[in-house]
Amino acid sequence: MTQFIDIHHGMKGITDEQLRQAHKADLAVEKEEGVHFERAWADPESGIVYCLSEGPDAAAVQRVHERAGHKADEIHPVPLSIW
Amino acid sequence: MTQFIDIHHGMKGITDEQLRQAHKADLAVEKEEGVHFERAWADPESGIVYCLSEGPDAAAVQRVHERAGHKADEIHPVPLSIW
Repeated sequence: MTQFIDIHHGMKGITDEQLRQAHKADLAVEKEEGVHFERAWADPESGIVYCLSEGPDAAAVQRVHERAGHKADEIHPVPLSIW
Repeated sequence: MTQFIDIHHGMKGITDEQLRQAHKADLAVEKEEGVHFERAWADPESGIVYCLSEGPDAAAVQRVHERAGHKADEIHPVPLSIW
């Protein structure tokens, strides 16, 4: 399992509620792809959304986002992490 | 206080230990700028490092990184977040 940060552009004006609903849609289908979406961040002004997930590969992460109706524009593996 | 995701490029080959040391250097000076670096992620292959912080503004986040010896290439506010 690897961690991934993925990025969505074009989400200008996104609200807290819309971010929450999008995240919920991911959670609803993620298990079938062996993925877990841990966190998500958004900037309504620039329209950028960032998601942090863990999964077998970037394709599985993308499949969850596609099935939830919001394909990611970029998916980056982040094998190293600290907190 | 706002959350920020900042990005560093050109870190190809970064090791877990180097990421840890860089994060420690941020933690050592962050209080003086009213910033807290919560997490960091890295991909040694693409050379991209992502940091998640909380602080008064992007300039304060950058000052911590500069004083720690690793200026960020991009700093994005992420006022909305979920986990």
